[in-house]
Amino acid sequence: MGGTPPLSPLAPAAFPDLPEIGGVEFATAEAGVKYKNRTDVMLAKLAPGTAVAGVFTRSATRSAPVLDCQDKIGGDVAGGAAIIVNSGNSNAFTGKNGRESVSRITAATAQALGIEEARVFSSSTGVIGEPLPHDRITAKLDELAGKLDRGGIAAAARAIMTTDTYPKGASAEVEIDGQTVKIAGIAKGSGMIAPDMATMLVYIFTDAAIERSVLQSMVSANSDLTFNCITVDSDTSTSDTLLCAATGASGVRVTEANTGFIDALRDVMLDLAHQVVRDGEGATKFVQIHVGGAKSDADARTHAMSIANSPLVKTAIAGEDPNWGRIVMAVGKSGAAADRDLLSIWFGDNLVADKGWRAESYSEEACAAHMKGENIDIRVDLGLGGGTATVWTCDLTHGYISINADYRS
Amino acid sequence: MGGTPPLSPLAPAAFPDLPEIGGVEFATAEAGVKYKNRTDVMLAKLAPGTAVAGVFTRSATRSAPVLDCQDKIGGDVAGGAAIIVNSGNSNAFTGKNGRESVSRITAATAQALGIEEARVFSSSTGVIGEPLPHDRITAKLDELAGKLDRGGIAAAARAIMTTDTYPKGASAEVEIDGQTVKIAGIAKGSGMIAPDMATMLVYIFTDAAIERSVLQSMVSANSDLTFNCITVDSDTSTSDTLLCAATGASGVRVTEANTGFIDALRDVMLDLAHQVVRDGEGATKFVQIHVGGAKSDADARTHAMSIANSPLVKTAIAGEDPNWGRIVMAVGKSGAAADRDLLSIWFGDNLVADKGWRAESYSEEACAAHMKGENIDIRVDLGLGGGTATVWTCDLTHGYISINADYRS
Repeated sequence: MGGTPPLSPLAPAAFPDLPEIGGVEFATAEAGVKYKNRTDVMLAKLAPGTAVAGVFTRSATRSAPVLDCQDKIGGDVAGGAAIIVNSGNSNAFTGKNGRESVSRITAATAQALGIEEARVFSSSTGVIGEPLPHDRITAKLDELAGKLDRGGIAAAARAIMTTDTYPKGASAEVEIDGQTVKIAGIAKGSGMIAPDMATMLVYIFTDAAIERSVLQSMVSANSDLTFNCITVDSDTSTSDTLLCAATGASGVRVTEANTGFIDALRDVMLDLAHQVVRDGEGATKFVQIHVGGAKSDADARTHAMSIANSPLVKTAIAGEDPNWGRIVMAVGKSGAAADRDLLSIWFGDNLVADKGWRAESYSEEACAAHMKGENIDIRVDLGLGGGTATVWTCDLTHGYISINADYRS
Repeated sequence: MGGTPPLSPLAPAAFPDLPEIGGVEFATAEAGVKYKNRTDVMLAKLAPGTAVAGVFTRSATRSAPVLDCQDKIGGDVAGGAAIIVNSGNSNAFTGKNGRESVSRITAATAQALGIEEARVFSSSTGVIGEPLPHDRITAKLDELAGKLDRGGIAAAARAIMTTDTYPKGASAEVEIDGQTVKIAGIAKGSGMIAPDMATMLVYIFTDAAIERSVLQSMVSANSDLTFNCITVDSDTSTSDTLLCAATGASGVRVTEANTGFIDALRDVMLDLAHQVVRDGEGATKFVQIHVGGAKSDADARTHAMSIANSPLVKTAIAGEDPNWGRIVMAVGKSGAAADRDLLSIWFGDNLVADKGWRAESYSEEACAAHMKGENIDIRVDLGLGGGTATVWTCDLTHGYISINADYRS
């Protein structure tokens, strides 16, 4: 983790131009938690009345800041609020000391901004099991409070990176009754990516005015279709956190009925989720897996994730090998309902397996050509019912081994 | 799969000297199913009255020979029997043609040996989804029947290899009432190894006289403690098959009460299971994971397998990195009960995590020294109850990627 890893070949051309969100200001600092000569702390100050919703990892060994966020997330929204995040140390598996570190950081943030500690949400990401030197963070809070800036979201996206090779951002604007509301989000994540009811570190801001419980419902439902549908390596982080803050600065009230807003929020979340996959450790291919014809949506998801997490499928994709037998294997082992003799598989537009048998029209050349592309589409039809799911992953390459085995962390 | 892969660094010094088993004869041939210039078919002829028990993959896309074996396994044991196995093609996902191939092979074997087709068990291992050229196998049956040999088990072990880098064999002798019964077994397997209620291809022979249903109980129970406790890459084969044949040639009757025999059979199965892990694709470390203090044995197994299948744990081991935070992560994501603040972890004899916190006595140097060895021991105590499980795996290295991605299959 010492040197800067090479930029992912799947990286976007540039960080997007994100809109400023009324009621949100950002600041970053170099606290030296672990990394040197780069920012590693970001502070987001949220205007009074901002509703904050969150989804979190379901790991049984989740980190101290995740537990603290979960305690605070349903609270009163009256006063100002803040999000404080450090990279370089996850403050996970740090016992009582971990809780103490969270308390010190959130108390110092509350004091520096003149807000309630119960309204300060914190995240930490990085190595597991090391004591967090929280004093390096608290020492920077006056500096952070003094340079808050509405245009600071791009710098914030950089400060939360760990093994990421690029910062991740996405935005949307929605017209509601002739007025515009804005959404902007940032994320980090590259390895230990198999979110379960939550995600990596993701922060999304909107100037819409949304009741907290409504915002929570929107975020939870959209997570199931976005961050919960990606996997890099099947390993679920102890720190996965998504916080979504609605400041209301636009003056535009948004409810469950505003499907345009919900769709725009989901687009931002899906964009960020795809950016996490595209920065998957060692990734050279972006892979979409769509399973249809399952007995239920849950069964479809089980099959899709079994394919997406199979080392043999992922290495075949890395080798540009249209090895559809490994798709059959992954469906067979998933535990969800499947009938070998009804199973069909496509690579791109090429039908390779047709109801339990190699397709008459199978062309090794056409499939191999599809596998050479950067975007791989795998489609499976189980022929059993109407259940569907789409998930996204990347390939498994020497790069993943190098990042995780060749260097001592 | 074209060239011969380099011998696993974890390979045993030599193939063991296996005893001849009364009532069992072997023959091998070069049928050219896929490989050239090597044997790829093995025939085992079993004396009349031989009881045959089996456990098989639970994959929903299991192969035609597995389905045929499952149909036959409970049948009458009166006449002679046989096991016929080919490597190079798994006859999996081959639809109606697959069933036809099995039928042709088992019928030809029955005819060549003068036995009932219902007593011929077949296996196929190799590529998935390709039609099996069964005529190449049936053309060799007279040759095979003509050179059956009681001492042919080592040659049989070689004929069933695919990506294996060495043949696998194990044996035991048990004294029962002053008489000796013998057990000898062979196995193949290297990748796509995460058996579920079954194993790779494993054939075990004994001259004990055992009732079929009793033999089945012994084999099933022992499988749960041996082959079902190994994983190379979390990917479950479509072809996993274990057949155990008891010829009775020793004249010694064995029942459920003969725990000495059951233990010896389990030792042979565990030895073969460990040999499969030691030949894991790209393996450089043999890893034992013991989980204790779980709420139940099932929970312990879920945690142990979550650790054993975690790419981040396996790459850390490859990098000789005592990265115990990744063990915490794998326990946290497993879904089984865990309490972070009761969790303790050892690498070898070194306590690294003590009830939710880095151990006071933690020594990076001592742990790093353990990780440099060939045999890695990871022990986890959950502090919740009396459930235990032990599983075995190998590390995840560049070798695995090379075998599965660098070459088109």
